[in-house]
Amino acid sequence: MRAEIITIGDEILIGQVVDTNSTFIASELTKIGVSVHQITSIQDEREQIFQTLEAAQKRSDLVIITGGLGPTKDDITKEVIAAYFQDTLVEDRSVVENIEALFKKFDLNLPMPANLRQALVPSKGEVLMNKFGTAPGMWLEKEGVVFISLPGVPYEMKHLLIDSVVPKISSRFERPFIHYSTLITYGMGESAVAEKLKDFETNLPQDVRLAYLPALGKVRLRLTSIGSDKNQVVGKVEAAMMELQTILSEISVGLEEETSIVERIGKILKSRKQFLSVAESCTGGKIAAEITKNAGASSTFKGGVTAYETSLKTKILGVPKKVIDTYNVVSVEVAEAMAIRACRVLDSDYAIATTGIAGPDKGEGNDEVGTVCIAVATPNGVISEKFHFGHDRYRVIEKSVNKAFEMLLKEILKI
Amino acid sequence: MRAEIITIGDEILIGQVVDTNSTFIASELTKIGVSVHQITSIQDEREQIFQTLEAAQKRSDLVIITGGLGPTKDDITKEVIAAYFQDTLVEDRSVVENIEALFKKFDLNLPMPANLRQALVPSKGEVLMNKFGTAPGMWLEKEGVVFISLPGVPYEMKHLLIDSVVPKISSRFERPFIHYSTLITYGMGESAVAEKLKDFETNLPQDVRLAYLPALGKVRLRLTSIGSDKNQVVGKVEAAMMELQTILSEISVGLEEETSIVERIGKILKSRKQFLSVAESCTGGKIAAEITKNAGASSTFKGGVTAYETSLKTKILGVPKKVIDTYNVVSVEVAEAMAIRACRVLDSDYAIATTGIAGPDKGEGNDEVGTVCIAVATPNGVISEKFHFGHDRYRVIEKSVNKAFEMLLKEILKI
Repeated sequence: MRAEIITIGDEILIGQVVDTNSTFIASELTKIGVSVHQITSIQDEREQIFQTLEAAQKRSDLVIITGGLGPTKDDITKEVIAAYFQDTLVEDRSVVENIEALFKKFDLNLPMPANLRQALVPSKGEVLMNKFGTAPGMWLEKEGVVFISLPGVPYEMKHLLIDSVVPKISSRFERPFIHYSTLITYGMGESAVAEKLKDFETNLPQDVRLAYLPALGKVRLRLTSIGSDKNQVVGKVEAAMMELQTILSEISVGLEEETSIVERIGKILKSRKQFLSVAESCTGGKIAAEITKNAGASSTFKGGVTAYETSLKTKILGVPKKVIDTYNVVSVEVAEAMAIRACRVLDSDYAIATTGIAGPDKGEGNDEVGTVCIAVATPNGVISEKFHFGHDRYRVIEKSVNKAFEMLLKEILKI
Repeated sequence: MRAEIITIGDEILIGQVVDTNSTFIASELTKIGVSVHQITSIQDEREQIFQTLEAAQKRSDLVIITGGLGPTKDDITKEVIAAYFQDTLVEDRSVVENIEALFKKFDLNLPMPANLRQALVPSKGEVLMNKFGTAPGMWLEKEGVVFISLPGVPYEMKHLLIDSVVPKISSRFERPFIHYSTLITYGMGESAVAEKLKDFETNLPQDVRLAYLPALGKVRLRLTSIGSDKNQVVGKVEAAMMELQTILSEISVGLEEETSIVERIGKILKSRKQFLSVAESCTGGKIAAEITKNAGASSTFKGGVTAYETSLKTKILGVPKKVIDTYNVVSVEVAEAMAIRACRVLDSDYAIATTGIAGPDKGEGNDEVGTVCIAVATPNGVISEKFHFGHDRYRVIEKSVNKAFEMLLKEILKI
């Protein structure tokens, strides 16, 4: 069974908006054993939408379309779909009622005519009710191929996909079983990892694929297999993953399906009833934000101080001014003092601290842009290291955040 | 002139990685007047890559391909391109030297054989040297269509695109002129904005397009035009934009090309020599991170406190415990106290404060998940408001961050 995704919207083609919808849809389809073999992004243009639907019909069993269902004039997907199915648009009473209920719930004035136009749907299709917005989803079939049209607003699309589309696909199509598992490693480059895995790759079973996903300061390794027998597919991937974890035990931080590095740190600290805090300078709140984006962060995270201006490192954290004057604000000594003081001030067992120059300007000291000192304070003391992360502000911040979590996890695992 | 982008990688099709490369490429091509009419993401599979190249040849003048050039076995793009061009791979001496220099620069051991395989390139192509990585870019032509293959690592791809590809395209192709301009509005829904713009849309010149880009708490409005005469194209868009800004003056925060809301706030504060700080609870460092991701943040941003645990609101910020006990930690009173205290403790003229329940758990108080109080302290006093942002943790945080900046800008503009 072959599926494909079509996302419609000029904003994607001019590079103004990142297409995260297709990522979400692809991930959910993969979970239920549907292979997505193509994602196509096209403009809000009648002819191109029509031709793309035609091409999709030839190569796929399932086509999921998002975008172009809004209330405004630039939204033309529904009209083109009706034309492609040689159908007309008719008002759906249940959609009108849904729109009216939404306006009542959010205490808005009566629906605008533009919203009510959203209740027009192709007569041959089945409406997929959108509980969180005014644009309904639609399910249509043509010569055995299923076309599903969903709104482009991510939140509405996600709810429709999970609540209506996935269950309907599951009962409509027979699917093989796909299983994948991804190992997260920190601190070694892609080529060096590949060199370590040479024999492993050669000996992998034919139907298990290994993929490398390099990023700033980390490499993820994905094993995938597909087949009709669930136990066999899972067994093969899990066996290979066990071998992989053994070979890479020094740099592995766990499986992505189970946990991110932040969640892994959180789990361990929670089980030990210990707490974490952060004292940030060049990372400017990003480490705290990465921690608190996870549900349940409050059970292990006390809080943080972003001491962006140098004087605040002394005023709020209590880093001795003498240490800053003697060693320079970007120094392992200051990073260590920040981490130790954060444990005290924020009442935590562990603390991460960063101080550095994200750029593009050099700031107060003599250090080069990209110089970052990271320290981790633990119940047993404090460690620190100085890094050079290049000249790109975004990359300097990202690499600092990833390295800080890597250092913290290593220290936590030592105890 | 029609361009398209092909991104290659199983990780995109299983939804593990968001395809941000094509967004960047599309944005840069648009800037030089090249219309991207399609973006296609496909798997690391020989036959599919071949067929996609064939289809692209028929519909485009320029095809940019990323991904699949890594040193590992799952990277097959180069072999397929060679096959498509009925060509063979030959070692390029300058690429070998570049790889060796990179290894020397980063003080690594000698290049691995896998890296040296990256120096094999199609004999008919032109090498585009990758100064930041071991995989070179390639420029090939077939029957008048230009194919450019770039590595998938975003940092390397971006440098190659800007340094080599864009200049070469600019001199190789005659291009029309594209101009677009995007207005950012905060605080009104898409349908309501569309209702306000009914007459404006009807009277827009035929060759100027209006698009709505709704997001959490804001709607962006993009005007685009394309043509051969640069002055005419720019003039039409700018005239329409001026009208748009007048109609939407109450909700507009500026043009996206010039500024984000955070940059706009930063510019005003800098010109007034005033400073900002933040005191965050439920947003957990995200507001500080959004501010500090901009270069030059240090000239207006003092720092922030993420007082995640309630007691830290008192201990670090000095919010009276009595206020918290009397009004509850999620209250406008506590938000106001946090903002006022942040100005004091962090020595700033303005401060944003947030306190709320991001969920999924309810936490200590009786308030529903999604309840957030935001306060803004200014030299003239403090304002605050209570919101209900729904039940999704990610959305609650995003909406809080956007609303906080919206409130701050409004206050700044009053003075």
